[in-house]
Amino acid sequence: MNSLAAATGKEIFDLLRDDLAAIEQEFGGYTRSQVHAITEIGEYLRQGGGKRLRPALLLLAAKLFNYQGKGAVRLGAVVEIIHTATLVHDDIIDEADVRRGRPSPNTIWGNPKCVLAGDWLYMQAFQISLEERNLHVLDLLIDLTKQMVEGELLQMEKLGTLIDRDAHLDLIYRKTACLFAVCMQLGAVLAKAPEEQQLRLREYGRAVGMAFQITDDVLDLTASEQVLGKPVASDLREGKATLAVIHALEHCTPEERAKIQTILEQRAFNGVTHQDILAILARYGSIAHANQQATHYAELAIQQLEGFPDNDFKRALLWLPKFVVAREK
Amino acid sequence: MNSLAAATGKEIFDLLRDDLAAIEQEFGGYTRSQVHAITEIGEYLRQGGGKRLRPALLLLAAKLFNYQGKGAVRLGAVVEIIHTATLVHDDIIDEADVRRGRPSPNTIWGNPKCVLAGDWLYMQAFQISLEERNLHVLDLLIDLTKQMVEGELLQMEKLGTLIDRDAHLDLIYRKTACLFAVCMQLGAVLAKAPEEQQLRLREYGRAVGMAFQITDDVLDLTASEQVLGKPVASDLREGKATLAVIHALEHCTPEERAKIQTILEQRAFNGVTHQDILAILARYGSIAHANQQATHYAELAIQQLEGFPDNDFKRALLWLPKFVVAREK
Repeated sequence: MNSLAAATGKEIFDLLRDDLAAIEQEFGGYTRSQVHAITEIGEYLRQGGGKRLRPALLLLAAKLFNYQGKGAVRLGAVVEIIHTATLVHDDIIDEADVRRGRPSPNTIWGNPKCVLAGDWLYMQAFQISLEERNLHVLDLLIDLTKQMVEGELLQMEKLGTLIDRDAHLDLIYRKTACLFAVCMQLGAVLAKAPEEQQLRLREYGRAVGMAFQITDDVLDLTASEQVLGKPVASDLREGKATLAVIHALEHCTPEERAKIQTILEQRAFNGVTHQDILAILARYGSIAHANQQATHYAELAIQQLEGFPDNDFKRALLWLPKFVVAREK
Repeated sequence: MNSLAAATGKEIFDLLRDDLAAIEQEFGGYTRSQVHAITEIGEYLRQGGGKRLRPALLLLAAKLFNYQGKGAVRLGAVVEIIHTATLVHDDIIDEADVRRGRPSPNTIWGNPKCVLAGDWLYMQAFQISLEERNLHVLDLLIDLTKQMVEGELLQMEKLGTLIDRDAHLDLIYRKTACLFAVCMQLGAVLAKAPEEQQLRLREYGRAVGMAFQITDDVLDLTASEQVLGKPVASDLREGKATLAVIHALEHCTPEERAKIQTILEQRAFNGVTHQDILAILARYGSIAHANQQATHYAELAIQQLEGFPDNDFKRALLWLPKFVVAREK
């Protein structure tokens, strides 16, 4: 479909090294405050790392158009701060103990401070983005955060239930793909790309995000605890049916359906084991189905790139969807 | 100081009746969402009422300049929604059971949904304000919310301690006066008033807000539970020293200081009674001092209005600071 050879992960990292370092620096500077707790929590979260995939998407989109301004580093920090804000509030909501292999901030600073720290990170992200003096940037970021918050609320309403495919895909769009989409669009907006190209890159971001989340959800079901660095099947334990499970529900017997329902309702493997579920998923090819869907989204992403000029950044964007679906943790 | 006679409360209500009704309508419409929990919580909070003092300030400021557009109703709803968002998160943080005489939302919907509902209300307020297509409006609102969130965090850090006067005044600025200030400035910004006039009205709002909060804090110490509709001296019970108490601390004996400290640290009247504290405050004229400070801010507010053209809206603004310090609940 595309004659240009994809880059490798190392090449992409080399391509973005200086900008990602600058974003790391900005993130650190922007989350320093006269309020002690904010600086502490901000620093803790920044040091916790993360793949910085969202800023990388934004950088690649801007650079695809040869954008040279300071806005990409600035908005790269903004999207990572917004991502961090959602994690802080999500950990309160999920009563999480662990985040990226360390105690989650709520277990260290308590819920009240973390509610406010999350609020502050949102406000700070918007304030930094205002430096662009571009209302469209604010439109995108505020619509995004509203959709993400609605997604979390919708997810809470669906917990423990047999959610259908459309509702699930809407949830993972809001939870993950919407932010990926906005990162890509922001890069294009900074570079003053024509609207049609903005929207194609947005669609690229959405598709990569869907592929990313579906792959994440499959790994939660199939990977070992050692590889994953967290307990397996935690989605089921939290009452969340993900794509493979939904596929099985679409095809299985009433007895199998009852088994899945029991786990979702009880949010625990009592009587029905993780192995029982994997056996059901294997019987209907449900894991393979979810992987196919992830691959479908990855291909959809790559299609969006047709017609863009060939350069290193396009090569990187061609590589990324394949990486996202092939990763093992 | 000003020859124009002040209006009365009823006259002001008549003046703003249609616009306040329109704001009520907008508030209701804007907090409807496809997400069930948001609509429910939004409706519950809207019905809970409140004085709508903040939208009234914004309307008066805009109308002082004969502003005729739709922006004042829109931003009036925005400031009330922001105010509501802060209350939702504050109730989680304070573990409040009661808000405006009814169960607080967190006791009905639980903390997780209320964290997200508060987030959503912030985002929705920003999104509505974007309809003005005016970056300055966003600058003001986002700086405001950041300051308010920092204020809550600073207050948490100071709880149970003998806070000094400057730190306390900074807290009540962030907690209350900053929003009043921004309401006034937004009205002037909508009306495209010169910057000097914007800033004078902002200062009016700040001063009214300071007077409002100091009066609130005095009433918490002196009013009866019947009049107040909530337990008296709840600030002390929450470990908060307010202006009258800070004045007493500046003048009292080490023994008296120890008594006050005991209550703040224990967050309860064990051994030291509410009457003991009132006796200390009476001994040093501390309640009178706080009331004088409130009156000082009210006068400062009125001074800012000099030179503005005389009209009904100016009369209303002349009345408001006096009402704020004279109210008994």
